Amino acid sequence: MSRYFPETGERARHTIFPGVNIAACAGDKLMLSLVDMLPHAVVEEHEHPHEQAGMILSGKAIFIIGGEQKTLRAGDMYLIPGNVRHKVIALDEPVQALDIFQPVRTEYL
Amino acid sequence: MSRYFPETGERARHTIFPGVNIAACAGDKLMLSLVDMLPHAVVEEHEHPHEQAGMILSGKAIFIIGGEQKTLRAGDMYLIPGNVRHKVIALDEPVQALDIFQPVRTEYL
Repeated sequence: MSRYFPETGERARHTIFPGVNIAACAGDKLMLSLVDMLPHAVVEEHEHPHEQAGMILSGKAIFIIGGEQKTLRAGDMYLIPGNVRHKVIALDEPVQALDIFQPVRTEYL
Repeated sequence: MSRYFPETGERARHTIFPGVNIAACAGDKLMLSLVDMLPHAVVEEHEHPHEQAGMILSGKAIFIIGGEQKTLRAGDMYLIPGNVRHKVIALDEPVQALDIFQPVRTEYL
């Protein structure tokens, strides 16, 4: 196993909400989490102390961060400071996004 | 300007090596940097104290991290601990990758 080049099969896989599947790998303080959402799947409103950021890779989703709402599509980025409540709602097609957390969310390892 | 939803036009743009252009935005300790490399462009070997991670979005590139070499393609991830030397060589087509740094590389703001 390479420290620098995590294989796809080495990612930690979890279903974090119905229709929301992640495949994650971690460095020292950074975690990458590739998120796949089925159409209309919902990441229910929640918060965590970890800072989060990411980019939509495909599809469209409504993001609600700290009470601010925006529809994001491929190429759009988002920034979620620690302890700010957020929710994501996939629209009519599958959504893929790359989420990043710092520090590592050890519960996803 | 939204703290949570950075617009494409608000990203900080730099040419960091010939044929290697970035568009970056930053949260508190996380920085996202969308990297576009022309075919055969090279990120020369370098290092920085910031931890780096990322994913290839399109194209193929040779990554050399800490002396370990691998050809990465769309969907492949990489993890670069702080102070580890690394180099990237785009192959025959344009390469796009999402780089993440922690802490923020303030020279890219």
